Amino acid sequence: MAFEFKFEIEATDPNSAARIGRFHTPHGIIPTPVFAPVGTQATVKALRPSDLHELGATLILSNTYHLYLRPGDELIKELGGLHHFMAWDGPILTDSGGFQVFSLSDTRKIDDDGVTFQSHHDGSYHRFTPEKSIAIQENLGADIIMMFDECPPPKDYDYVKNSLKRTHAWAERCVAAKTREDQALFGIVQGGIFPDLREESARFLTAMDLPGYAIGGLAVGESKAEMYATLDIMHPLLPSEKPRYLMGVGAPEDVVQAVLRGVDIFDCVLPTRIARNGAALVKGGRMNLRNARFTRDAAPLDASCSCYTCTHFSRAYLRHLVKANEILGHILLTLHNVHFLLNLMRQIREAIRKGEMQQFASEFLAHYPPVTGHVQK
Amino acid sequence: MAFEFKFEIEATDPNSAARIGRFHTPHGIIPTPVFAPVGTQATVKALRPSDLHELGATLILSNTYHLYLRPGDELIKELGGLHHFMAWDGPILTDSGGFQVFSLSDTRKIDDDGVTFQSHHDGSYHRFTPEKSIAIQENLGADIIMMFDECPPPKDYDYVKNSLKRTHAWAERCVAAKTREDQALFGIVQGGIFPDLREESARFLTAMDLPGYAIGGLAVGESKAEMYATLDIMHPLLPSEKPRYLMGVGAPEDVVQAVLRGVDIFDCVLPTRIARNGAALVKGGRMNLRNARFTRDAAPLDASCSCYTCTHFSRAYLRHLVKANEILGHILLTLHNVHFLLNLMRQIREAIRKGEMQQFASEFLAHYPPVTGHVQK
Repeated sequence: MAFEFKFEIEATDPNSAARIGRFHTPHGIIPTPVFAPVGTQATVKALRPSDLHELGATLILSNTYHLYLRPGDELIKELGGLHHFMAWDGPILTDSGGFQVFSLSDTRKIDDDGVTFQSHHDGSYHRFTPEKSIAIQENLGADIIMMFDECPPPKDYDYVKNSLKRTHAWAERCVAAKTREDQALFGIVQGGIFPDLREESARFLTAMDLPGYAIGGLAVGESKAEMYATLDIMHPLLPSEKPRYLMGVGAPEDVVQAVLRGVDIFDCVLPTRIARNGAALVKGGRMNLRNARFTRDAAPLDASCSCYTCTHFSRAYLRHLVKANEILGHILLTLHNVHFLLNLMRQIREAIRKGEMQQFASEFLAHYPPVTGHVQK
Repeated sequence: MAFEFKFEIEATDPNSAARIGRFHTPHGIIPTPVFAPVGTQATVKALRPSDLHELGATLILSNTYHLYLRPGDELIKELGGLHHFMAWDGPILTDSGGFQVFSLSDTRKIDDDGVTFQSHHDGSYHRFTPEKSIAIQENLGADIIMMFDECPPPKDYDYVKNSLKRTHAWAERCVAAKTREDQALFGIVQGGIFPDLREESARFLTAMDLPGYAIGGLAVGESKAEMYATLDIMHPLLPSEKPRYLMGVGAPEDVVQAVLRGVDIFDCVLPTRIARNGAALVKGGRMNLRNARFTRDAAPLDASCSCYTCTHFSRAYLRHLVKANEILGHILLTLHNVHFLLNLMRQIREAIRKGEMQQFASEFLAHYPPVTGHVQK
């Protein structure tokens, strides 16, 4: 069944590239800008689908590499697809597996046809090609799927330039391999931090008229200033009528900066990962509950926060759970952190609707240190 | 403030010692027979207070030994007591710490005044006496607190006999040390598997007219047949108008057998512990999700179960979560297992109300192997 992946832009900010929109998918409409919590292994760690609905999640990401290895994409297809398997009836986005092949597998060998790699579980050998990545993603059945690309070191000009040829050829093979009409295949613009390469990649991929475009190759070691500068470069290169997805970015200050530069979709393990390390997202940074100063602190993480954690529990209790390595500590901090990001997105959409995004961003970013350091996740 | 810890017996089974009742506490009425999930470190592992309410829990247990060591009972008192600390507004029972001192601490030295032991966290030295146990439990502020007793090896007659003197002297010291009138102090009848010692202990403690009595020293290595026989001995020895608590028992078949023998209150880590090991309670035993035969099993754990887990997820998905060691696996299996036991208690109460407990027990126990083996938790 063919599905029309409409992207309706509802309002644009008069003073920045920010906009609010609605992206239509077979499993529902995604209001943008949107943050997608990450469910690597077909579960957003420590949360239930009902939590995600209650928190207001409208898109989650799951990982092709992980699900291919365990429990296997064919098993998931046999059990009704990823939505049914994990009991999440909202929109899902799957990545192509490429990033994990390059970052997680024990060894990998890349050629123009694809990548051979060893599983990080058992060292067994596997091969991903553009065709294979699409076949896996079709078995999983997400609403948004990603083209298989090479993710090169972002600051090595010659490597990035050569890699573009391969990535573009793979993009064409992904489009040719795709058979399902109820999945939107997004292109991924590469080019590292280099304006001419970004332009070359954007030109090639936008000519393919895909339903959305990701800005790839960021959040992999460059500085925040370099990432923001690259987003400034990308803005005029991407068609304004298509959704733009900044892969792997989720630090609150980066999200705000990227929305100002026209980004619509984000995903990141940050809120769930730091929760399991005992840290809570608060305005201006992170609160590490392992810190002894919270031992007798009867206050909630954030007195103005309406999440389940902040309306029921003290910092002292959360610190106790973290110190005792209790599962409830992971749950409560994850609930708060995901709420923090989804609430930030609601505030961002509201600010754009009112034409006040610049003001909102200034006030929000005033709590953070000036732009330094590297992009984290 | 004085509180009247009323125990109203609503109905008794015509063919067994089973009865249904209502035990009044400052934090609510507990319908009996009741199963108390265990929240060792001020959290029932993997569950939120809202889950416990939704599952129908009306009593939870927390551990004096653990909370004394971390985060400390004085800290919990300072933060408003255990109910407020863990955001559970229903009834709580704390044990005396005695059992953990004997079973968990690295070394311990017992004398007639108390027990000196080393923390299992850091090897630091601590001392519990009856007075100290009561002081800690008063700081925690549970609705039901337990006397500090010695838990001897249940089949060593001479040891158990000598130990009774100490346990009875400690019982009197606990009563003398108690200052709060909003906590019910339960006595603990010891005596191992020996009828004469059980009688001696019951006679001594019931003369103290405490608001409830625990049957201690079971579920510590004796066989199921020995435990059931001891419960048969206890039944006529305990005052019928007081609630009876079988400590540390929670295997479904043992609960049913004990209800037939007049027990009103149970607690056990079994449903939460086996969940974290990947096992689900089902009628007749346990389903180990690590078993490869569930790999492609699209059925829920139990098609007749109404819990969140069974109404949303397949065995194949749960097996995937268990294999991947995902927190959601712990959560979903814990939800199911606690639901299983709390639902069993609802069924038991309903059967007693209808005068059909014998019939219910026969049908339920028919799914289990004949009484063999040891009591497990």
